[in-house]
Amino acid sequence: MSADRRIRVSEIFGPTIQGEGVLIGLPTVFVRTGGCDYRCSWCDTLHAVDSEYRDQWTPMTVEEIWAEVLSLSGGRPLTVSLSGGNPAIQPLGPLIERGHAEGYRFALETQGSVAKDWFADLDTLVLSPKPPSSGMETDWALFEDCLASAAGGPDVALKIVVFDERDYRYAREASARYPDLPVYLQPGNHTPPPADDDDARIDIDGIMERMLWLVGKVTEDRWFEARVLPQLHVLLWGNRRGV
Amino acid sequence: MSADRRIRVSEIFGPTIQGEGVLIGLPTVFVRTGGCDYRCSWCDTLHAVDSEYRDQWTPMTVEEIWAEVLSLSGGRPLTVSLSGGNPAIQPLGPLIERGHAEGYRFALETQGSVAKDWFADLDTLVLSPKPPSSGMETDWALFEDCLASAAGGPDVALKIVVFDERDYRYAREASARYPDLPVYLQPGNHTPPPADDDDARIDIDGIMERMLWLVGKVTEDRWFEARVLPQLHVLLWGNRRGV
Repeated sequence: MSADRRIRVSEIFGPTIQGEGVLIGLPTVFVRTGGCDYRCSWCDTLHAVDSEYRDQWTPMTVEEIWAEVLSLSGGRPLTVSLSGGNPAIQPLGPLIERGHAEGYRFALETQGSVAKDWFADLDTLVLSPKPPSSGMETDWALFEDCLASAAGGPDVALKIVVFDERDYRYAREASARYPDLPVYLQPGNHTPPPADDDDARIDIDGIMERMLWLVGKVTEDRWFEARVLPQLHVLLWGNRRGV
Repeated sequence: MSADRRIRVSEIFGPTIQGEGVLIGLPTVFVRTGGCDYRCSWCDTLHAVDSEYRDQWTPMTVEEIWAEVLSLSGGRPLTVSLSGGNPAIQPLGPLIERGHAEGYRFALETQGSVAKDWFADLDTLVLSPKPPSSGMETDWALFEDCLASAAGGPDVALKIVVFDERDYRYAREASARYPDLPVYLQPGNHTPPPADDDDARIDIDGIMERMLWLVGKVTEDRWFEARVLPQLHVLLWGNRRGV
């Protein structure tokens, strides 16, 4: 395999439970790739985003990654969560193919800014467009490309982080664009870990307050299709990495 | 409608989010019926179970219940959660029919001790057999009847509360009986509210500790199909009723 087909890996860990969204509570092994085309103001995985940490991202072959997943899962098939950074900028198609051959499943989460033809091979695709508080702007044409790439393949769900009223309106509008996609709302973590400290102070009470506010918004607006879920891993482990 | 077709209602409240299991995070109106054929040692809804509170259960017609659901939901269709006590001992078929005609959906949770032909009309059936710590014994023949009644109808899921090793083994065995059913594990609330106090002290740390233990069990055993979820409403509101 040539070097340019390698996947830049920030960390591989698990099995632990998926803490967010449509697969919440499901045991999974995370393959977190390094590098991102976004730079959200409240990013909670800066160590996999900020190019300052690029020397901590290991270029790995499919076989190297797969050996690690096999070892962590004891060879027993499970759902592998492809995360980042933005995992869509990595060449993950052959990894998915490799895992599928052994009965593993693959879920990928991305903001929807880069489409890949291998999206169609996923089992679950979580599209997580970033609301205004992130400081990013959504390019809906690129987002459409992601949906088109996934067509006929994985289950697709929307997941939108909400910090404030403006984010909430963005979430409503995003969901209105795609009424057929299940939508998951998630209160933001306003005390994300800095890139170089995985066990920094966290304000669980503040997160729960925002969760309650979000539940109130959704029920008052009678937005009965939206699911509101916290980041379960943050409630369980705070900002700790690798769990 | 004759009096014997009335439904004994303990409380109707919402919309709030479903706190447990397969529909976690989804806005719902709860119709909690009064009366139960079980008496679990750690029951967290004694006010809807203990016949001492029977005078607080209101016999209501379908139209009376439906008016309340319509009012709470503002006439906007959502998923109604039929809960208890054991809602399966109530004549809920006509209520489901009434709601379906207006586009509402129905989820019912029951221990699986009483089968009704209207199970097939549900959208979601959560079967929650009670583990040894409850002090109850599962009659698997009756449980099978419930599954048979639901056949071809709702999405069916298992949800099992786990307090200890013995409960965990029970959960594994129950799930092994029905490998095709998605299974949700839930750490128990060892400080359930007494029937006459809906805001009693609760040990969130203890619940989270049990949640972590359960995540550890599942991942160590490589039981990768099981989902582990807390009671989200307990984390958000403690033992408070009506939220």
